[in-house]
Amino acid sequence: MGSFIDLPIVYSTLITWLMFTHLVSSTAVERSTYIVHVDKSVMPRAFTSHHHWYSSMVDTLTQSGPTTSDVSHSKPSLVYSYDNVVHGFCALLSQAELEAVKNTLGFVSAYSDRQLKLRTTHTPEFLSLNPSTGLWPVSDYGRDVIIGVIDTGVWPESPSFREDGMTSSPIPAKWKGMCEVGQDFNASMCNSKLIGARYFNKALKANNPNLTFTMDSARDSFGHGTHTSSTAAGNYVDHASFFGYAEGTARGIAPRARVAMYKVIWGEGFQSSDFLAGIDQAVADGVDVLSLSIGFDEDLPFYENPIAISTFGAMEKGIVVSHAGGNTGPGFLSLFDSIPWSVTVAAGSIDRFFTGTLSLGNGFTVTGWTLFPASALVEKLPLYYNKTVASCDSTELLSEQVPFRNIIICENTGSFFSQLEAISRSNVAAAVFISDDPLLSVDEQFPWPGVVISPNDGQAVIQYAKTGDEPWASMKFKKTILGTKPAPAVEYYSSRGPSRTYTRILKPDLMAPGSLVLAAWPPNLIASKIGSSIPLLSDYTLLSGTSMACPHIAGVAALLKASHPNWSAAAIRSAMMTTANPFDNSNHPIQDKGRNNTFASPLAVGSGQIDPNPALDPGLVYDLTPQDYVNVLCYMNYTKNQILTVTRSKLYHCSNPSPDLNYPSFIMLYSNESIAVQTFQRTLTNVGGDAATYNAEVVAPAGSKVTISPNMLVFSKKFEKKSYTLNIEYKAEGNETNTYGSIVWVEDSGKHRVRSPIVLSPEVMITR
Amino acid sequence: MGSFIDLPIVYSTLITWLMFTHLVSSTAVERSTYIVHVDKSVMPRAFTSHHHWYSSMVDTLTQSGPTTSDVSHSKPSLVYSYDNVVHGFCALLSQAELEAVKNTLGFVSAYSDRQLKLRTTHTPEFLSLNPSTGLWPVSDYGRDVIIGVIDTGVWPESPSFREDGMTSSPIPAKWKGMCEVGQDFNASMCNSKLIGARYFNKALKANNPNLTFTMDSARDSFGHGTHTSSTAAGNYVDHASFFGYAEGTARGIAPRARVAMYKVIWGEGFQSSDFLAGIDQAVADGVDVLSLSIGFDEDLPFYENPIAISTFGAMEKGIVVSHAGGNTGPGFLSLFDSIPWSVTVAAGSIDRFFTGTLSLGNGFTVTGWTLFPASALVEKLPLYYNKTVASCDSTELLSEQVPFRNIIICENTGSFFSQLEAISRSNVAAAVFISDDPLLSVDEQFPWPGVVISPNDGQAVIQYAKTGDEPWASMKFKKTILGTKPAPAVEYYSSRGPSRTYTRILKPDLMAPGSLVLAAWPPNLIASKIGSSIPLLSDYTLLSGTSMACPHIAGVAALLKASHPNWSAAAIRSAMMTTANPFDNSNHPIQDKGRNNTFASPLAVGSGQIDPNPALDPGLVYDLTPQDYVNVLCYMNYTKNQILTVTRSKLYHCSNPSPDLNYPSFIMLYSNESIAVQTFQRTLTNVGGDAATYNAEVVAPAGSKVTISPNMLVFSKKFEKKSYTLNIEYKAEGNETNTYGSIVWVEDSGKHRVRSPIVLSPEVMITR
Repeated sequence: MGSFIDLPIVYSTLITWLMFTHLVSSTAVERSTYIVHVDKSVMPRAFTSHHHWYSSMVDTLTQSGPTTSDVSHSKPSLVYSYDNVVHGFCALLSQAELEAVKNTLGFVSAYSDRQLKLRTTHTPEFLSLNPSTGLWPVSDYGRDVIIGVIDTGVWPESPSFREDGMTSSPIPAKWKGMCEVGQDFNASMCNSKLIGARYFNKALKANNPNLTFTMDSARDSFGHGTHTSSTAAGNYVDHASFFGYAEGTARGIAPRARVAMYKVIWGEGFQSSDFLAGIDQAVADGVDVLSLSIGFDEDLPFYENPIAISTFGAMEKGIVVSHAGGNTGPGFLSLFDSIPWSVTVAAGSIDRFFTGTLSLGNGFTVTGWTLFPASALVEKLPLYYNKTVASCDSTELLSEQVPFRNIIICENTGSFFSQLEAISRSNVAAAVFISDDPLLSVDEQFPWPGVVISPNDGQAVIQYAKTGDEPWASMKFKKTILGTKPAPAVEYYSSRGPSRTYTRILKPDLMAPGSLVLAAWPPNLIASKIGSSIPLLSDYTLLSGTSMACPHIAGVAALLKASHPNWSAAAIRSAMMTTANPFDNSNHPIQDKGRNNTFASPLAVGSGQIDPNPALDPGLVYDLTPQDYVNVLCYMNYTKNQILTVTRSKLYHCSNPSPDLNYPSFIMLYSNESIAVQTFQRTLTNVGGDAATYNAEVVAPAGSKVTISPNMLVFSKKFEKKSYTLNIEYKAEGNETNTYGSIVWVEDSGKHRVRSPIVLSPEVMITR
Repeated sequence: MGSFIDLPIVYSTLITWLMFTHLVSSTAVERSTYIVHVDKSVMPRAFTSHHHWYSSMVDTLTQSGPTTSDVSHSKPSLVYSYDNVVHGFCALLSQAELEAVKNTLGFVSAYSDRQLKLRTTHTPEFLSLNPSTGLWPVSDYGRDVIIGVIDTGVWPESPSFREDGMTSSPIPAKWKGMCEVGQDFNASMCNSKLIGARYFNKALKANNPNLTFTMDSARDSFGHGTHTSSTAAGNYVDHASFFGYAEGTARGIAPRARVAMYKVIWGEGFQSSDFLAGIDQAVADGVDVLSLSIGFDEDLPFYENPIAISTFGAMEKGIVVSHAGGNTGPGFLSLFDSIPWSVTVAAGSIDRFFTGTLSLGNGFTVTGWTLFPASALVEKLPLYYNKTVASCDSTELLSEQVPFRNIIICENTGSFFSQLEAISRSNVAAAVFISDDPLLSVDEQFPWPGVVISPNDGQAVIQYAKTGDEPWASMKFKKTILGTKPAPAVEYYSSRGPSRTYTRILKPDLMAPGSLVLAAWPPNLIASKIGSSIPLLSDYTLLSGTSMACPHIAGVAALLKASHPNWSAAAIRSAMMTTANPFDNSNHPIQDKGRNNTFASPLAVGSGQIDPNPALDPGLVYDLTPQDYVNVLCYMNYTKNQILTVTRSKLYHCSNPSPDLNYPSFIMLYSNESIAVQTFQRTLTNVGGDAATYNAEVVAPAGSKVTISPNMLVFSKKFEKKSYTLNIEYKAEGNETNTYGSIVWVEDSGKHRVRSPIVLSPEVMITR
């Protein structure tokens, strides 16, 4: 592994990973960027600022003279000074210069800059947000909360970022951000909705001085950031749709919250040092919530994970960090980046189905899946079935065998997308695809007229095509069905726990809508296509992934922040988790599309689907302080400097190392050898009414014994804290499966139910 | 010429004439339908009704026994009794039976049934209709006026026929129409907007007893009638567009008028007897205005022209008949069906341009014509020019030579539409078409991404493609430009006078918007297409032709009828003609697209572009009585029965045969031999204020002398009539061109200007 690590980037639908092609070359230069963490507390008094100190460290190196003839890299140079979530800097250094830095006063740690890579509109209704009661009106729709989005930039002219309805209250006084001028971006492009936009690519430039940027500004040339930021806090936009599908009024989850974009992701590559600079600035600017639809799909220790490092500083300031869980499901242990101080988000489906109607000449009618982006006329055309071409994967065969303007039946033999590609180059009028692939219904591309139907219905269609007299069929497109059941289900692609990075916290935390979310899109980027040659544009598009689920949680967190300005990030996360819904709209446990629609485990959905209105009034919360998190780092046997890399401050201590956090969920890993026993300590804070009595309702995971002590908690006043222990005994007996349970603290009045999932997981899964 | 005459049908864009393919066969039967005109005044008292009488006439024939073994045609039968615009009937008869009928009491005339064949939404603004002042508010938007449309049927579920805003006043009590039940059409499909819908195909059925109808009801399976009727009186529909082009609020010219559809045109063929039945019923039902976007493109004497015959009866009842002038331009003498008692409508352009933007890598940007029906992404693609493939008419050559996803330049060498067809089967990403074909901008089909630019701009694009370094181009679609100048211009296809049928009336009368009018469309019919294989649907579409201009005049007539309920059809026509605008929006005379954009003559535009608001208050009108029209028929040396065929009534007389009508325009035909002299008699009725003085302003046609006597008209009260003579002297001197002038009666106050065009036309044009 060289100095650059290629990690997949979550982009577009997270099914199709976009691999940036212009990767930074590491062979052409002798110097490259390093991130250096510094103990700021030992800064000599001679320096007037941290920046002055860091510059001096780098300048000192220069005095030894150039080490290369490459002019553009002819001397070491400071790229960024960090001060908010990181104490330290990023510098362009040679290996020898790095060694020199390591011997400098205050040096904590250093690592090679990573080539970080990346990981809409019915959803408010689906989440029961409504203007009459609950979180929307109570929070005034998130007004005065600032959501910082770390992403690919923003398209400021999108109607989702208009300031209508935003100007009645001033931008919060604490806001220190700016609208940074750059390519095709001027300072007047921000407004009362999009209050800030900055971009960070100095490290990319330092490493690649000759690189030409496609869009050297905060303007989005990928679309991802425009989509995520409008999902979190887009303004109201009537008649938004994806070519007629999902039509309605688009708006974000917190439609009156403010948006600040920090562009750190570039088509030309992107680096953790640029990312760190963006998040460092966002915290300095005064954001309340951070939405991070990016990640490493690799197990990195927290002290080498720029996301973990930077979000610790954010958490300290009370900023809720919503973080996409990744799209590497459905296997267990597919979730990386499981950071204890952020909210890790899984992606679920929406109660919405994009359909076409297939009608046969014999009267049989079936509603199938389609997103063909035009109202194609497919009326009483001959229906063609022929076993030899039914794989539909050869344009040549299709052109030879299928009569002009017939409807062909394609069986479930190849890839749906290669079938679509072959058909779109033939003279086939339309296709009936027979498939039960769960991934079909999360991709927005559907370039040829057709519908996807189930193998069951498919048999009836084939039968008619084979035996009917001049069989024919018709199709209608652009129908959106709402209220489909069951929904949500956790998506195939959504990453599953347990986390390898730190196994003793259950991740993901929550599920939110992630598939075919409609949100804003730059009007110059492909949104869909027809055939193989005609890409299409749209101001709104459907995308799928945990990237899309993440800003939903950021939006809800913003609404909760507006409602409870003094709550910590942990309290807001606890409120969302303990009120999350483990059931779907059929009142059955949420299903798992990655496991044949069996019931989803907390390793897939965490505490369940976000349920914003109950989160407004959770009754009790599991709160946490920054020191609590440090106690875990101490337990992990990190070195002093490794801990300092994350925490930046020696005010934290390691006097109480602890494996456990006061977390709103439980996971126990067991080995197969003996009886596993674990005791969890928890403390609940009463944020409901004054006096309240709660009793524990426990569902023990199969084969386990769970003991709660005490099993009744009596609060006499608001903000009172009460502790309990949860003890699990389990004997695996050769069984290596995960088992699941829950504990719910139920208020006597029945008003509040404070629920936490319990997971027992075999340790062997992790170690092998 | 057999018993059926094939005439072209104006359909879809009138550029592409739709030829009905299922023509009625005349060889399979011995009997066929005849239209028989009867002198109803001699009906024997024994008969209780005209129907009884006509039935008896046909039954009498039966008594002689079957003349053929064809069961379905085994006896003569009555198909229709007519009583409103025709006295007589349609019957299935053999030649012998017809001869028997001719010897019956009361017989006037008979002729073989003809196989008749046929000939939107910014336009209210373009015609200066507005809610603040003028014709719209004064007429209450045409409320209580009923427009009968004789066409292909209607799609009753179109939003343009919703009754929102119509129910506040009851359907006029005089209405006797109905909502006829038929295939896919029930009585509840009519409402306060679409108050009636009937269908007429008994003659088609009688002639073809085994014919299966695609849609045996008033439901529109062609789209033409849905388009024309919504153009005349469609309700308000927000966000209507043609795939994003022409987007806006669609509504008819008289948005509160009522619509009654009479379907007489069928995919299976159509017959003048069915047409007669439709118009006969419309008059009986109580329509106020008739819109006829159909016609014969052949010179028929009035007594054999079902349109002339039936509209005479309508005119008698005060019904204004708007009639499409035909699409057989641009030659002189291309206008047929020039009926003295109807308003003959020419088609003009709209101040609207549907564009795409072509941007080159060298900074050159040009706006071209496009209607590609999707927002295609064409961004910085290689621009390809190669003389050998620039004709763009060979898919094979294009596939071989043009690199994948290039933009090709197509020169003006072949047909634009065959170029589009070839390209859409290749891998060309988009095309730059270089053309100055005036017909391009009246067709709504544009199946591949591309723009049409002028040869001038084209040279610059070719130059760049040949000499640029890696030349590239981008395109943007779906831009609608309003307010383009000059507009209107008369369209290439619009039929031009003089009329051969009756040369002494100037036709057409008026021009109205006819090209790419946006109006309602059945949602199951093709509206556009992408490539060669994907037809597209839309609730609104753009169509071109005098068929589209005609309902504009019907709508204005309805507004005038609502404002002046007691005015005759001639007075309403006069108001529209004398206030029509001979100038375009550049304040130059209207141009003629069929004559290299030179100034259009009255033979192309009649009195000019309809100008609804001034028509509300014309000051003076040229009125006419039915007898005035009969005087012309008498002058034409028609026989008594020929005249009776048209007039149905012996109350008319031939004591004052006259070549001239009190018409609001003048045409004189001259021979080359001598000095031509003609004197026209005219009488003006004061419909303005009480007392008024008018002076004549004359522009004499080049080389002529025009004398007005008197040249001042003093009216002392309202409804007073004053006469004048207009005398023209002209010596052709070998010159055979048309020349043009005008007379305007200008009120002293300047308030009213009553304008009539004058045309001098060489007789030799007609005779050769």
